[in-house]
Amino acid sequence: MIKASICTIGDEILIGQIVDTNSSHIALKLEESGIDVTRMISIGDNRDAILNQLDSELKQNNIVIVTGGLGPTKDDITKDALKVLSGSNCYVLNEKQVEIVKRILHSRGLDTMDINIQQAMVPDKCEVILNKLGTAPIMAFHFPTERYGHRASLYSMPGVPFETLAALPDVMENIKNHFNTSTITHHTIMTYGIAESALSKKIEAWEDSLSELGIHLAYLPNTLTGVRLRLSMTGGDEKTNNETIDNALKRLRPILGNIIYSEQDDKLQNVIGKMLKIKGSTLSCAESCTGGMIAHLITTVSGSSEYFLGSVTSYSPLIKQSVLNVAEDTINSNGIVSAAVASSMAQGVRKLMGSTYSIATTGWADSYGDEHEPAGTVWVAVDGPNGTVSRRFEYHSDRIHNIERFAASALNLLREYILNN
Amino acid sequence: MIKASICTIGDEILIGQIVDTNSSHIALKLEESGIDVTRMISIGDNRDAILNQLDSELKQNNIVIVTGGLGPTKDDITKDALKVLSGSNCYVLNEKQVEIVKRILHSRGLDTMDINIQQAMVPDKCEVILNKLGTAPIMAFHFPTERYGHRASLYSMPGVPFETLAALPDVMENIKNHFNTSTITHHTIMTYGIAESALSKKIEAWEDSLSELGIHLAYLPNTLTGVRLRLSMTGGDEKTNNETIDNALKRLRPILGNIIYSEQDDKLQNVIGKMLKIKGSTLSCAESCTGGMIAHLITTVSGSSEYFLGSVTSYSPLIKQSVLNVAEDTINSNGIVSAAVASSMAQGVRKLMGSTYSIATTGWADSYGDEHEPAGTVWVAVDGPNGTVSRRFEYHSDRIHNIERFAASALNLLREYILNN
Repeated sequence: MIKASICTIGDEILIGQIVDTNSSHIALKLEESGIDVTRMISIGDNRDAILNQLDSELKQNNIVIVTGGLGPTKDDITKDALKVLSGSNCYVLNEKQVEIVKRILHSRGLDTMDINIQQAMVPDKCEVILNKLGTAPIMAFHFPTERYGHRASLYSMPGVPFETLAALPDVMENIKNHFNTSTITHHTIMTYGIAESALSKKIEAWEDSLSELGIHLAYLPNTLTGVRLRLSMTGGDEKTNNETIDNALKRLRPILGNIIYSEQDDKLQNVIGKMLKIKGSTLSCAESCTGGMIAHLITTVSGSSEYFLGSVTSYSPLIKQSVLNVAEDTINSNGIVSAAVASSMAQGVRKLMGSTYSIATTGWADSYGDEHEPAGTVWVAVDGPNGTVSRRFEYHSDRIHNIERFAASALNLLREYILNN
Repeated sequence: MIKASICTIGDEILIGQIVDTNSSHIALKLEESGIDVTRMISIGDNRDAILNQLDSELKQNNIVIVTGGLGPTKDDITKDALKVLSGSNCYVLNEKQVEIVKRILHSRGLDTMDINIQQAMVPDKCEVILNKLGTAPIMAFHFPTERYGHRASLYSMPGVPFETLAALPDVMENIKNHFNTSTITHHTIMTYGIAESALSKKIEAWEDSLSELGIHLAYLPNTLTGVRLRLSMTGGDEKTNNETIDNALKRLRPILGNIIYSEQDDKLQNVIGKMLKIKGSTLSCAESCTGGMIAHLITTVSGSSEYFLGSVTSYSPLIKQSVLNVAEDTINSNGIVSAAVASSMAQGVRKLMGSTYSIATTGWADSYGDEHEPAGTVWVAVDGPNGTVSRRFEYHSDRIHNIERFAASALNLLREYILNN
């Protein structure tokens, strides 16, 4: 199996200034190509430490992916270490990257300075993969087999997460051209509304049947997107693998039913967006304890203005009454965290905005609460052409994670409502 | 200087399933105590790999902090590696941790099972630091100096971020009892509204004066909270250090003025919350392109219901008219992304909710836009007792980061407005 190591360079990581998100994105892509990530390492901006660490990683791995350590003020250190490591003789200017640099700076109304051009200078033994969104190009170094006793390549990528993400497909392409990566057939199943342990129990018999088919199953849980199931098969013929996985899925779908919300790598808000677009329907929200999180999630989707009309965060009970038209008596007789108040909020915002559907939440994120509705409890309601439905959820995390779970539970209730509509 | 390494254990990290946020929190605390974090490493759930890596880290460092690799199904691997590494003879039950386990499970309406009790079993050579929020205790192993040729301690913490965060002060206390950590005097200055490069230029002369005073300055930029300046002095007498830093700050404050929003480790929404509480004032928001992010940020603060009445996300122009009372003509003559529309939204929501202050945003997060107001542009307005102010901001990031910058810019404009009020 091809082995890889991911190295992050930057003092800012070692002093806890930033969280490294690049490594997990890169690991996911490597793993999906059947490459075994043996470890991840973060080291500081020190030329000798970089040189020693990368050399040591190349001894133990076929692929070493480096992120960070580049940029106008840092270039010297990492680039110099790479120049020495690769036995390069000099730096050369990559004209194509210079053009990109000029275009990016021009679009921001900035002149191109020498320091920007410098970024397109690379050690002569590297293969350049263009960075289309940034100034520092990706550098690929392919070492002769005798150097480390095995095929070894090093890829140096910028540290800026959106540049790294954008360049990752080109890097993966280059890896596939240089290494005999296994054919891996993948299929993703997104589920929501069931905990990992309960899900594992529910599909136990089905899961047991997978190993003799050569299918590997991974559970990938996430607060906002539920449990992602990933089925994969390594090697063999892709068409046969796809058929094997398809047959397994035919047996899984009836077991899970609506718990499955997508068979792509989707989020709840993307799936809801697609459903609303197809139906030509619109949506509004009334939030209390989620405080804007649901509207925020919905509007992270580009193009959400096609179906999302808007929302009201009615944090104060008086706003629930004055803007959403919740009756004072409904609040007093049922309590502010109740099915009745959630339902009335959903009805109120739907009428206010004239949307096809609406979602509402009322709950205790981390404080207050009573014996019936303790902290961590939320009532969610959905209103639409088929009337109002409400449901209660209870979670046991901190304020921020409870809010996230509340919001995701509300989105999922809406999804189920639209499906049953 | 005392050297430390942070090791994260878990296959879920190497396959890119989760992002490791623990390491940066731990690194920050170590760095603040004058401990030098030499590197961070993530490895898989493999007994021999764990054993070898931890042994190798202890050879090169005084302190090794391990997170993850514990939990009902994984305990065996990491704990067994730690038992072997520490030369422990057996496992012993920590009764105090058992009591916490029972209490936590009981509060969730769950019975305590054998598998939960198992988590409170630890190798006999470890010192237990109680985990008050979870089931697996923190294990501290202090090695005799002759073992590694230097003082060496290993701390094994759970992988669940909120448990790790909660236990970190106790771990730091234990470290301070076992190691002669330097006295470090810190002071934090939170700034917003100025880029790191511009800030560095503005305070260049002041910064130059710091080194001969023995003050170290670090810039820690963040999309949502601006640039944090951290002043620190190592060694010496704490009282004298505080005076030296105080004197330096006396010269900094007039240079930066209102750019400084806090001298604690605060976020904009916390500072605004404190200001509103003191004044007994209230707040509402009208969001368009920020889609609920501002309300979400405000309501991440526990107790925000004391001053936050609510918000309207008017994603559709029609909702801007019908709910916020923005005149159709204002939209048509000025464009939807304009000072006039932002101002009218702020006025509309303030009237609707009856709040002391209001914030509004209208902009293009990543698409549409024209030559005057390209994608990345936002108009922000604040309305209050002193009338309406509006300001334009332009950013060049992706959709999610533009939304974050828009929201933070709006919060900052509100802060400035209240200060000038």
